[in-house]
Amino acid sequence: MSAWLRSIVDDPRAERVIMVLIVINAVILGLETSETIMASHGWLLETLDRAILAVFVVEIAARIIAYRGAYFRDPWNVFDFIVVAIALVPATETFSVLRALRVLRVLRLVTRVPSLRRVVGGLITALPGMGSVVALLSLLFYVFAVMATKLFGEQFPDWFGSIGASAYSLFQIMTLESWSMGIVRPVMETYPYAWAFFVPFIVITTFAVLNLFIGIVVNAMQAEHEKAVNEERAAERDMIHDETAPLVEEIKALRVEMAALRQRIENPAVRPPE
Amino acid sequence: MSAWLRSIVDDPRAERVIMVLIVINAVILGLETSETIMASHGWLLETLDRAILAVFVVEIAARIIAYRGAYFRDPWNVFDFIVVAIALVPATETFSVLRALRVLRVLRLVTRVPSLRRVVGGLITALPGMGSVVALLSLLFYVFAVMATKLFGEQFPDWFGSIGASAYSLFQIMTLESWSMGIVRPVMETYPYAWAFFVPFIVITTFAVLNLFIGIVVNAMQAEHEKAVNEERAAERDMIHDETAPLVEEIKALRVEMAALRQRIENPAVRPPE
Amino acid sequence: MSAWLRSIVDDPRAERVIMVLIVINAVILGLETSETIMASHGWLLETLDRAILAVFVVEIAARIIAYRGAYFRDPWNVFDFIVVAIALVPATETFSVLRALRVLRVLRLVTRVPSLRRVVGGLITALPGMGSVVALLSLLFYVFAVMATKLFGEQFPDWFGSIGASAYSLFQIMTLESWSMGIVRPVMETYPYAWAFFVPFIVITTFAVLNLFIGIVVNAMQAEHEKAVNEERAAERDMIHDETAPLVEEIKALRVEMAALRQRIENPAVRPPE
Amino acid sequence: MSAWLRSIVDDPRAERVIMVLIVINAVILGLETSETIMASHGWLLETLDRAILAVFVVEIAARIIAYRGAYFRDPWNVFDFIVVAIALVPATETFSVLRALRVLRVLRLVTRVPSLRRVVGGLITALPGMGSVVALLSLLFYVFAVMATKLFGEQFPDWFGSIGASAYSLFQIMTLESWSMGIVRPVMETYPYAWAFFVPFIVITTFAVLNLFIGIVVNAMQAEHEKAVNEERAAERDMIHDETAPLVEEIKALRVEMAALRQRIENPAVRPPE
Repeated sequence: MSAWLRSIVDDPRAERVIMVLIVINAVILGLETSETIMASHGWLLETLDRAILAVFVVEIAARIIAYRGAYFRDPWNVFDFIVVAIALVPATETFSVLRALRVLRVLRLVTRVPSLRRVVGGLITALPGMGSVVALLSLLFYVFAVMATKLFGEQFPDWFGSIGASAYSLFQIMTLESWSMGIVRPVMETYPYAWAFFVPFIVITTFAVLNLFIGIVVNAMQAEHEKAVNEERAAERDMIHDETAPLVEEIKALRVEMAALRQRIENPAVRPPE
Repeated sequence: MSAWLRSIVDDPRAERVIMVLIVINAVILGLETSETIMASHGWLLETLDRAILAVFVVEIAARIIAYRGAYFRDPWNVFDFIVVAIALVPATETFSVLRALRVLRVLRLVTRVPSLRRVVGGLITALPGMGSVVALLSLLFYVFAVMATKLFGEQFPDWFGSIGASAYSLFQIMTLESWSMGIVRPVMETYPYAWAFFVPFIVITTFAVLNLFIGIVVNAMQAEHEKAVNEERAAERDMIHDETAPLVEEIKALRVEMAALRQRIENPAVRPPE
Repeated sequence: MSAWLRSIVDDPRAERVIMVLIVINAVILGLETSETIMASHGWLLETLDRAILAVFVVEIAARIIAYRGAYFRDPWNVFDFIVVAIALVPATETFSVLRALRVLRVLRLVTRVPSLRRVVGGLITALPGMGSVVALLSLLFYVFAVMATKLFGEQFPDWFGSIGASAYSLFQIMTLESWSMGIVRPVMETYPYAWAFFVPFIVITTFAVLNLFIGIVVNAMQAEHEKAVNEERAAERDMIHDETAPLVEEIKALRVEMAALRQRIENPAVRPPE
Repeated sequence: MSAWLRSIVDDPRAERVIMVLIVINAVILGLETSETIMASHGWLLETLDRAILAVFVVEIAARIIAYRGAYFRDPWNVFDFIVVAIALVPATETFSVLRALRVLRVLRLVTRVPSLRRVVGGLITALPGMGSVVALLSLLFYVFAVMATKLFGEQFPDWFGSIGASAYSLFQIMTLESWSMGIVRPVMETYPYAWAFFVPFIVITTFAVLNLFIGIVVNAMQAEHEKAVNEERAAERDMIHDETAPLVEEIKALRVEMAALRQRIENPAVRPPE
């Protein structure tokens, strides 16, 4: 039965139906944000939304039955499973955020369209190479956040009252948003030397982020280059072989000729047929 | 007659006249923005503007007659046609924007100057390679805009009241303009965990845009590199050929010598002429 | 005794203990920023902090005894020594900043984790290549700061009252933070041509910083490329050798044959054994 | 006499004296911005400043006499001449800006220090390659400035009242400074569709500037790469020559041998000396 289910869920026509449903679902979820449309067609939209959700649940259930354990080994499937499962959690008052998260279902389009999947895959595979720089940035953020909290926390509790508040403010400063007019100039009115804390922070983190970006560029290009070099090497080998092959032929013919000559001299009695 | 028209519109002198007229037109359209100049010389400027426009209309009409259907197959011609046609639409009250769009006529300079044309062409040919990333960014924007509308729309209708408003606000946040002091801090006063929505949004979209840019860099350099590699390959082949050619000559001479020797041994009677 | 101490401080288990202590210390220093936790467990945290500091002091003392002068020749050790020494300076009222600097101790993690060390090392070795550009930027900053102070200092003492204030404001302008709405538009109300000072400053410094960044990218990639080219060269040489080696063999065999033939002709009496 | 003057002005010791004077002059011009120092030591500083200026004037006069017309052919000398000449223009009330420009004299340091000169030279030689993109950006700015003036000039005269004001505002928007909160949101309150003008402007100009930067990166790396490829090509040719040279030797020896053999057979009477 699992083979029969596989032939259905992997059928290109079934895949196309699911893709169309995802797009329709995206439009429905968009329309649901408009109050006027909800007032006039709310019932229709919600019914359609539930119907599509039901199809998704059936589809994923079919896939799980068809592939069993193998299903969850593909991270894309795990992603699919989670974004659909979110919609099934009852959205109580306390979990009203879950209602908003239902729109994540639209991201299933990425799982379905190969070119989008490749782009996201590329972004994710670029992450591990950045591990050390991300770790370093996190460490720097932690150290600077603790220092900012100790130095400015008492006077500016909104910005630097706790490590969390400091980390958020430092992230804002790193993105250069209102760092001077909004944060550092007011702080400098109380602590005139605050620039000696913030300017190095900006220079260091900007430099680190730059290095992170350069690292990705160099890695991405390196990978492309490696492939190109290997192809080039093969092409070159063929080229050199093409040039030396006739030489080898020529010399081999020469040896045959020479062997015949030798035999001719050693056995002069045996005359070649004239 | 179309051959005669072609010889006129493609005449370098005619092209130069059109270019000069475009520049003069640019200056006139600039001067028209000044109220004091309009008060004193408005009549002159408008007459000149209309005269130049008439020349443009005649020129494009001549080109269409000369090249017929082929004219509209070149996208640059389509661009030329549209920017001139805009000026002919009567600028009523409701279409007052069209009056402002008349200045797009100045962009005809790009069609005329080969170096500008090359730059714009390069920018446009770089676009398709970015298709997937642009599609992904659009999808992310849609999903985040729907979520933002559902989460913050009720409390902050100016920023997140509809999908359109949310998309604009998220674009502003992506450009890092006043994202924290202007938008996220006020939102966090109502929803303390709003940073968990906006900080990932900033990191993800900035990373995606970075990847878009890296993609263009790598592609642009790849194309240049490919060309360089091909030239290099040809140069190398010549080089190797130059080195092996004397070898081949030498061995060929050897074979000739050997053949003579063989004949000499086999027919000792036939003496070479002394 | 120094050999015995070395075997202890370089023991992987000892290193691991120190690393764990650094992480615990980081958490303690973080918790110390919370007033509620300090009120309930302050005594415990401070005791632990002092105990860990004592271990660090003993560790570094042991290393200095073990390696003597060689210890301070490694800049990482100097860094370790300073960040621990800071904690020992009595934090009086006037030196309250030193209390905040104690958290720098957490950065010892960089010295201990090889991958972080490599990243920081890479960042630092990239600096000397940027020397000239940094010198140029500093010179430009000095010249522009003096000019800004002379031009706008009297009217806008908060922003351009002294060289220091001007340099800070120009740094803010270079990061593009509120440069126009916050600084240049207000200045232009008094000095309408102020844009002729600030717009070139932005273009020049942004271009210089861009060049700085490009320089690092090109250098980093150049270094990688050089290594790749050398490997490629060696692989190519092997390849060409592999192709020509049989040729050489063939020709050597030919010569042996020819020598045998010659001898056969010159001494026809000596018959080969049949 | 000009040869004698040349030997003096090009003397490394003279050059070093000038460099030291430039640095001292920089410090003096910096100190002059402080009112308290001017009150106490103003007379001393001004006297020193004038003395150093006198040395500079004498130095440049000597160079002009020594090199005559050739002096002004080097653009660095023209720069030197202008920044010193500025100081000689009497700073009347109307030309008070010239007093501030005197500090440009400090930039003579760039002319003197080879590494700084190289960096600035590199920046300047990178400019012509950007010509087309800069021309395109200027054209876009002009067109968008005219359009902005026509569309929004009446309602927002401070930002878009004239082409100049519009160009400045658009430059601010291109640098993303307060573009939304400061400019576009207020404009959108009057013209709700203003985003359709500004968002494309941001995307187009940011993309164009990005392309400009990529162009410089690719060019800079291309130039480096070209050099590397040429060196590589030469190394390869040597390598291939090294491999084929013994082959040629071997075959030449073979021919000599063969020729001797042939002669031996053709003239059996002439016995080799035994």
